[in-house]
Amino acid sequence: MKPSLLGLALSLVALPGLRAEEGMWTFDNLPLASMKEKFGFAPDQAWLDHARLSSLRFPGGSGSFISADGLVLTNHHVGRDHIQAVSGQGRDLVKNGFVAATRDQEIKVPGLELYTLVAMEDVTARVAKAAPEARQAELGRIQKEIQDRTGLRSEVVKLYQGGEYWIYSYQKHTDVRLVMAPEVRMAKFGGDADNFTYPRFGLDFALFRVYEDGRPYHPKAHLAWATEGLKAGDLTFVTGHPGSTARLETQAQMLASRDVAWPERIRALDALRGALVDYGRRSPEHQRQVAAQILNVENSLKAMNGYLAGLKDAEALARLAKAEQDLRAQVEADPALKAKAGGSWDAIAKAMEVRNALWREQALVDTCNSTLLGHALTLVRLPEQAALPGARRLAEYNDANVEATRRRLLVDRPYHPELETALFTHGLKSALEGLGAAHPFVQAMLGGQSPEAVAKAAVAGSRLGDPAVRKALLEGGREAVLASRDPMLLLARKLEAPNRLLRQRIEDEVNAVVAEHGGRIAGARFRIFGKGVYPDATFTLRLTYGAVSGYPANGTHIQPFTTLHGLFDRALAWGPEAEGGAWSLPARWWERKGRLALETPYNFAHSVDIIGGNSGSPVLNRKGELAGLIFDGNIESLAGRYYYDARVNRGVSVDARAILEALGKVYDAQHLVKEITTK
Amino acid sequence: MKPSLLGLALSLVALPGLRAEEGMWTFDNLPLASMKEKFGFAPDQAWLDHARLSSLRFPGGSGSFISADGLVLTNHHVGRDHIQAVSGQGRDLVKNGFVAATRDQEIKVPGLELYTLVAMEDVTARVAKAAPEARQAELGRIQKEIQDRTGLRSEVVKLYQGGEYWIYSYQKHTDVRLVMAPEVRMAKFGGDADNFTYPRFGLDFALFRVYEDGRPYHPKAHLAWATEGLKAGDLTFVTGHPGSTARLETQAQMLASRDVAWPERIRALDALRGALVDYGRRSPEHQRQVAAQILNVENSLKAMNGYLAGLKDAEALARLAKAEQDLRAQVEADPALKAKAGGSWDAIAKAMEVRNALWREQALVDTCNSTLLGHALTLVRLPEQAALPGARRLAEYNDANVEATRRRLLVDRPYHPELETALFTHGLKSALEGLGAAHPFVQAMLGGQSPEAVAKAAVAGSRLGDPAVRKALLEGGREAVLASRDPMLLLARKLEAPNRLLRQRIEDEVNAVVAEHGGRIAGARFRIFGKGVYPDATFTLRLTYGAVSGYPANGTHIQPFTTLHGLFDRALAWGPEAEGGAWSLPARWWERKGRLALETPYNFAHSVDIIGGNSGSPVLNRKGELAGLIFDGNIESLAGRYYYDARVNRGVSVDARAILEALGKVYDAQHLVKEITTK
Repeated sequence: MKPSLLGLALSLVALPGLRAEEGMWTFDNLPLASMKEKFGFAPDQAWLDHARLSSLRFPGGSGSFISADGLVLTNHHVGRDHIQAVSGQGRDLVKNGFVAATRDQEIKVPGLELYTLVAMEDVTARVAKAAPEARQAELGRIQKEIQDRTGLRSEVVKLYQGGEYWIYSYQKHTDVRLVMAPEVRMAKFGGDADNFTYPRFGLDFALFRVYEDGRPYHPKAHLAWATEGLKAGDLTFVTGHPGSTARLETQAQMLASRDVAWPERIRALDALRGALVDYGRRSPEHQRQVAAQILNVENSLKAMNGYLAGLKDAEALARLAKAEQDLRAQVEADPALKAKAGGSWDAIAKAMEVRNALWREQALVDTCNSTLLGHALTLVRLPEQAALPGARRLAEYNDANVEATRRRLLVDRPYHPELETALFTHGLKSALEGLGAAHPFVQAMLGGQSPEAVAKAAVAGSRLGDPAVRKALLEGGREAVLASRDPMLLLARKLEAPNRLLRQRIEDEVNAVVAEHGGRIAGARFRIFGKGVYPDATFTLRLTYGAVSGYPANGTHIQPFTTLHGLFDRALAWGPEAEGGAWSLPARWWERKGRLALETPYNFAHSVDIIGGNSGSPVLNRKGELAGLIFDGNIESLAGRYYYDARVNRGVSVDARAILEALGKVYDAQHLVKEITTK
Repeated sequence: MKPSLLGLALSLVALPGLRAEEGMWTFDNLPLASMKEKFGFAPDQAWLDHARLSSLRFPGGSGSFISADGLVLTNHHVGRDHIQAVSGQGRDLVKNGFVAATRDQEIKVPGLELYTLVAMEDVTARVAKAAPEARQAELGRIQKEIQDRTGLRSEVVKLYQGGEYWIYSYQKHTDVRLVMAPEVRMAKFGGDADNFTYPRFGLDFALFRVYEDGRPYHPKAHLAWATEGLKAGDLTFVTGHPGSTARLETQAQMLASRDVAWPERIRALDALRGALVDYGRRSPEHQRQVAAQILNVENSLKAMNGYLAGLKDAEALARLAKAEQDLRAQVEADPALKAKAGGSWDAIAKAMEVRNALWREQALVDTCNSTLLGHALTLVRLPEQAALPGARRLAEYNDANVEATRRRLLVDRPYHPELETALFTHGLKSALEGLGAAHPFVQAMLGGQSPEAVAKAAVAGSRLGDPAVRKALLEGGREAVLASRDPMLLLARKLEAPNRLLRQRIEDEVNAVVAEHGGRIAGARFRIFGKGVYPDATFTLRLTYGAVSGYPANGTHIQPFTTLHGLFDRALAWGPEAEGGAWSLPARWWERKGRLALETPYNFAHSVDIIGGNSGSPVLNRKGELAGLIFDGNIESLAGRYYYDARVNRGVSVDARAILEALGKVYDAQHLVKEITTK
């Protein structure tokens, strides 16, 4: 709302210690000269190997070894599902936290696997030797060969959208046990309001331990705990697994997202949120049914609005447009590149026109927020899609995905007919409003009735809320489905063809074009810039670096650190009731407040270039010691999906000193303090 | 930069306790019914009289009586010049703070006068009886009559731009003594960065005492100290003296300010700031010479950018445009109003076109950042203007102002020829860049030379830096000035006519039109809405009210309170060095930290409608007790110059509890705690 204030604050005062560098770099190609120039320091190979071997890949996140006995540090929110999984027998470890007082109290987490990246082999040249159509098979051969040779789990990594191919080999850890977790409200202090923001006061960490053969595992490398804390301006390094970025999208893609995709998604999600909130108002029980979903929707809305805000930054967009112009000029100037990619920007722009034109229709000609209609559509489609050749099937019915689709159909989730009715009504109303009463799909679904009437009758008449009924229909195949008069199946048959035709148009006219021509542009870019730039995020190990630093926002300079004083300030300022207790502290934090060194640095902001997947990443100091733990970015960092802005984009980390303070003085875990601080 | 985030956060979560009401209301016309409806409470007449009689007008600010012995509370920044004035003899009371341990240590402040509003008389009807041309004289008669009758100081107050005339009668207090002031860095903790922002951690208060006949004065009323602290959602009242607002400007005026006036001013001021910063880089002594001026410029820039940001809020502007449209429609519908004001909007719009067209020229055809050229112009003009009839003189040469103009000419301020040269060079360069080399003024000033050469020669050759030289020229009159070959006087003669002609055009074609037609529109508005709306701010006593409440900003909910924990959090986060120690604490705060109840509420935000002049205003609770002290607004409140936005516009106050805590535990002032808490 106050667009010029940030710019102003920036123009007024130089920020202390602000030095930053964009980039999520692979370990084989680090900008060491640039680091050296900016910070007078660049890590050597031993430092880098140690950091890499200490780093861990979690499902959807990152972590690190922090003791010789295989102790693992990650975020509470990365480990949350696993902490939940080992709760039970009347104890809620997510809510109440957990400390294993001895090693035999450490709880094995079913199914959790962690990975250490132990080798990286560039196989681009070998792949290039194969004919284009044989490359995929050649990659498979190479992967298997390396896997057999090393005995490690090997994965193909495609960088620079095909500019390079690597085999990354991982050591896999399959016996992982929960050691310690604070209460979830300490980890997500401030709830959805403080999510994606800074200044922050989150204790978002958890400790696990890797075992091997029933004994604590001794990793090849682990991070020593920093003996000296960070201060403003200090250089930090982050190793972790950034998931995906959209920074190489063309201007046409970004503008389509800015003008159509995000606004439409946000509008729809905001309307859904309204429907959920209305439903929750009916009673406390209704509220209970939708509470988690509302939080998820709000989290998504906050993120999407952040992405959209990034795209609305005219200055940043102009910079990106200029970069695209420059790249296009270089492509135009080189006959070979021009032949390959010269027309690709226009091809993508045309595809975006199609996407924009179809957006609302493809979004609304769908299952109208009805879970049952979703199940019904799956039941109708499964036999029909199975009859098609693989290449003509919709993605979720491919050989690779169809099993998961069947599983989703049969999973037993709480089913509330009243909620189903409310959401289906909302979805039908949205279709009616968005497409108009004359649209064939709307006419087919409503048949002249009101959304309320259709939803009510379909939900009341359907038996698809019962997983056993779905199972029977699944097993009965096409005939059983065709024979059923379940109203949801009848509606699904009306939905199937128009939905499929729209999806196929999007697939052919948009997605295929973007994949083909995006690849061509990426190829041209790689030809021109080579490895002087970093590849798109691929959920593989990367290193980013930057300084601990505040930034201009809210009319002032946001401070580089917070302290435990600030935690109590914010808890006291809101009190225990506000926003459902979002800023309330567990009783033991109040009881033990007197013991704490309240001046202990708690969270900090640093100009590292991170994104989802980096959660749980260790923050290293120059010595390669553990000085902090990434757990979020500030609100400005959401624009990082599209570009990195060193002035305001910040990673948000828990300071290592606060973890020790909490372990030792609040959680009675001196044994863990001793373990992680032992040299 | 992230325009949609504020809106988002707002849409996601209802703010706790947010109830607010726009308006700076006069004590004769309070929206009691609306208060009652929104808060279930409205003060009665005794409450209001007590609040009014406890309130004080300071020069440029507000204050209140807080003890039966005439103790006065205001902001440190309202009293700062007076604290400075009683410093000396080697003691810097601004820097080090001051506590009078006994009453005989209280220091008399020379020239400080405070006012209590003891009576308000509506004289509109009497004025209306006079013929239009006799009204001013009639007002003078009435004022004198009331002054004679009451023995009080009476002032004419024009409300609703002439819709009402009042005589406000004040009791004047002329013996005012300094009792206590904290260190300036406690009062302005966070410096320019935190200025106009929140969350905040400022101890911006000072205590004075009114004496009469050499003894502490016993005021008719004083505010009792609140025994119960405020909490989020609580209703607060603020009495004080808002200075001026621009809320009744037409859309044409606001758009002209948005598109031309503020951007041009900001651009020019930012360039001046650059010149000052460059100068300061020459050496520490150069830095010392410009440090205070840079701070002032930055403060102005921050405020102006806030005003501009307010005008750039498309949603708010659309709301104001709609209100203007509605008013115009009502005026059009009433033949009498139409005849009076129907054409006024277009007349003002035309005046704004003139203002926009002339803006840069009138700004640059001036004294080019040269103090000496300013003095020279005054010396050239004084005799010439004196020869004109009063009505034809420029404002600063009117009978009312000419004495101040002479005083300014003779005042002895530090003069640094090198700084003068740098700033004059900057000013001449700005004129050259802004007007072009072919502009007659530029040609006249530069005479074919470079700005550097002209500035250097003029400053080196001028003796006007010496006040004695100026005094001699002033006393010598026109002949002495004409006889002088001082290069600055020569330049001033070239500047005089073009500058005067431009000023006269602005006066005739812009200011006079705005005054006339703005008055007509205000008249129409008053005819339609009467006293259902509040009058523009006039630096007279007003009451505003609103709830203690956070607001959405920076991606999250800003907390309603801060605590002393937060003060230490922010001090520790930045350390003592950042921004020249802006967030550093005096040693005694660290030494006595252990004694403090750190959970004490320190500053708070509330949805009251305040503006410059409200500084030092008491914050009252329902009981009419003192619960806090206004000292600033948040960054969003700068838009309050043009409109009040209840979602985000907040007053920022020191909590009364923090004042007690500081007095008792840091400043060894238990005697003052006792005095102000005695019932």
